Amino acid sequence: MSKAFAQYKPTVAVDCVVFGLDRQDLKVMLIKRGVAPFKGDWALPGGFVQLNESLDQAAKRELEEETGIKQAFLEQLYTFGAVNRDPRDRIITVAYYALVNLWEHQIRATTDASDAAWFAIANLPKLAFDHDQILQVALQRLQGKLRYQPIGFELLPQKFTLTQLQTLYEIVLDQKLDKRNFRKKILKMNLLIDLNERETGVSHRAARLYRFDKKRYEQLRYRGFSFEI
Amino acid sequence: MSKAFAQYKPTVAVDCVVFGLDRQDLKVMLIKRGVAPFKGDWALPGGFVQLNESLDQAAKRELEEETGIKQAFLEQLYTFGAVNRDPRDRIITVAYYALVNLWEHQIRATTDASDAAWFAIANLPKLAFDHDQILQVALQRLQGKLRYQPIGFELLPQKFTLTQLQTLYEIVLDQKLDKRNFRKKILKMNLLIDLNERETGVSHRAARLYRFDKKRYEQLRYRGFSFEI
Repeated sequence: MSKAFAQYKPTVAVDCVVFGLDRQDLKVMLIKRGVAPFKGDWALPGGFVQLNESLDQAAKRELEEETGIKQAFLEQLYTFGAVNRDPRDRIITVAYYALVNLWEHQIRATTDASDAAWFAIANLPKLAFDHDQILQVALQRLQGKLRYQPIGFELLPQKFTLTQLQTLYEIVLDQKLDKRNFRKKILKMNLLIDLNERETGVSHRAARLYRFDKKRYEQLRYRGFSFEI
Repeated sequence: MSKAFAQYKPTVAVDCVVFGLDRQDLKVMLIKRGVAPFKGDWALPGGFVQLNESLDQAAKRELEEETGIKQAFLEQLYTFGAVNRDPRDRIITVAYYALVNLWEHQIRATTDASDAAWFAIANLPKLAFDHDQILQVALQRLQGKLRYQPIGFELLPQKFTLTQLQTLYEIVLDQKLDKRNFRKKILKMNLLIDLNERETGVSHRAARLYRFDKKRYEQLRYRGFSFEI
């Protein structure tokens, strides 16, 4: 470790807001803290950045270590650096958010050491440190991005119905949407590929299945789009 | 300084991408480095975060110290933490971007010690460290935000004409826009207040002056809007 900059040495951490969507709720994965400070409280999964790894590497490693998730959409959110946000030291945390699809996969919120569980956004416990604030910023980012980037698709199964897609928007934005209007707008984006298949094993009339057009998806991710609802 | 986390002690810096708009160009303020590494190269203004200041405070302080700018729109951009981005130490930098209006004010790019100058985005020198990359990310953010938040208004004088507003969009997005279409869209946003004044001291036909509606501006800044052009 270089001593040249010893007066400027905070500790740097990463914390991950892991969003998951099932049929009813937008959820977030939390870890119960086994040690002080905030022992017994729920917190975002995270840990310290090693000096020999990048921030993205640290976030990916912590996500896997604490939640078992190996593959997920993972993006840097914001860096939180209030002077007294952690009682142990001056700790600056680079927050990330991850999106996982809980429709198809049952992602177990169990890790080696600590308790982990999915909580519905509408029913969260009080979180440790400034993690309430971090979670709010992540939620705003997710809601914002849904309006101008096709990011939310990461929360759906690969083949999905328009009803499932609308449900995603309704759950994340926490508002009811008009079905006709929603379909007109979403189809106009040329983002969906009609698979000429229908869903199976449902009691209601089987709906058409779609997947998204990856090329168009990347295009829209880069340049953005507008989805006024 | 706490020694409990000594193995996790990078140095943390802030760097600022300061955008300024004049009648022709989108510009960025750069500082010529007076010391190694990259001595003599141009770099973004910035410096180290003190242990007793927040990240926002550090960015504001460095902006003022290095460019003399006391008041500006200043927002956190992204945190860059590649392992070898600085040859001196493991230095993580929290990048910010600032917007200043060069139409009315002549902001002098002169500081106590080093050379400072405004460069047109289209004509940049090679920058020190990973500052080229930071600048590109800032430019993308600015272009993106202009499409879904009324952020660009920070770059205009308080009273402006629709032509000036269109020029802002054309310069930042680097594309020509159809005048009629642009006006229709921008007026539909209910963001502008017609001042019932006309510009003075111009040789062409004096155009109407507008200011933006601050309440509506904050609303749109929070919930976003769509401006497909």
